[in-house]
Amino acid sequence: MGPSVSDRPFVVTPKTAPTEDYSADGTGDVIKHDLIARQVSPPNFAMRLFNIAPGENTPYHQHPWEHEVFIVEGSGELRTADTPQPFSTGEAVYVPPNTMHQFRNTGAKRLKFICVIPNSGDC
Amino acid sequence: MGPSVSDRPFVVTPKTAPTEDYSADGTGDVIKHDLIARQVSPPNFAMRLFNIAPGENTPYHQHPWEHEVFIVEGSGELRTADTPQPFSTGEAVYVPPNTMHQFRNTGAKRLKFICVIPNSGDC
Repeated sequence: MGPSVSDRPFVVTPKTAPTEDYSADGTGDVIKHDLIARQVSPPNFAMRLFNIAPGENTPYHQHPWEHEVFIVEGSGELRTADTPQPFSTGEAVYVPPNTMHQFRNTGAKRLKFICVIPNSGDC
Repeated sequence: MGPSVSDRPFVVTPKTAPTEDYSADGTGDVIKHDLIARQVSPPNFAMRLFNIAPGENTPYHQHPWEHEVFIVEGSGELRTADTPQPFSTGEAVYVPPNTMHQFRNTGAKRLKFICVIPNSGDC
């Protein structure tokens, strides 16, 4: 057998990456692209691209790992137990471990953001 | 003392993040913004934004950790020991540990990319 994919450098596009529709009703309101994730077993962490329709959001939840997010396109707000914090294209958002959080698209177009997590997590 | 910054969620812009000029001659050809990095002690990994002038590049080097990169703006190529791989806005690039690599701006405008590394590394 040759080396696994993770032994080689590669370039990937959202269209060619493994993609999941996270919408409860299958409407594509919340889409996740696994850009660099389980399919290549990166040693430390995974990079995903989320694509969220206007008015939609990720779950309001928490987990033991941090989120590091970069806003690629659109605008929205980070909901936590404190005052919501607005964000827009070109900004980064940090969510510490064990912190309730939700990403809301409050803009008029789709919200796209990169979200990096340790390999131990998946949301 | 109150909680450290890393205990709270936050939104950060490249302009307000710690920024370093990596150019040998101080011309700003290679700039690094520490969006979520040592200043907040994230538990697992650090997110930086690089901004590279046309014709310029990062060092050709290797290290024991992987790179996970997302191209925010511009185009270029990944140089490794194999054939160079082109990339452009909206694509992701994976570089495995212990792999010689260099990011080259081959486009006409500045190249901006997010680069995530484990907290153990810094380049």
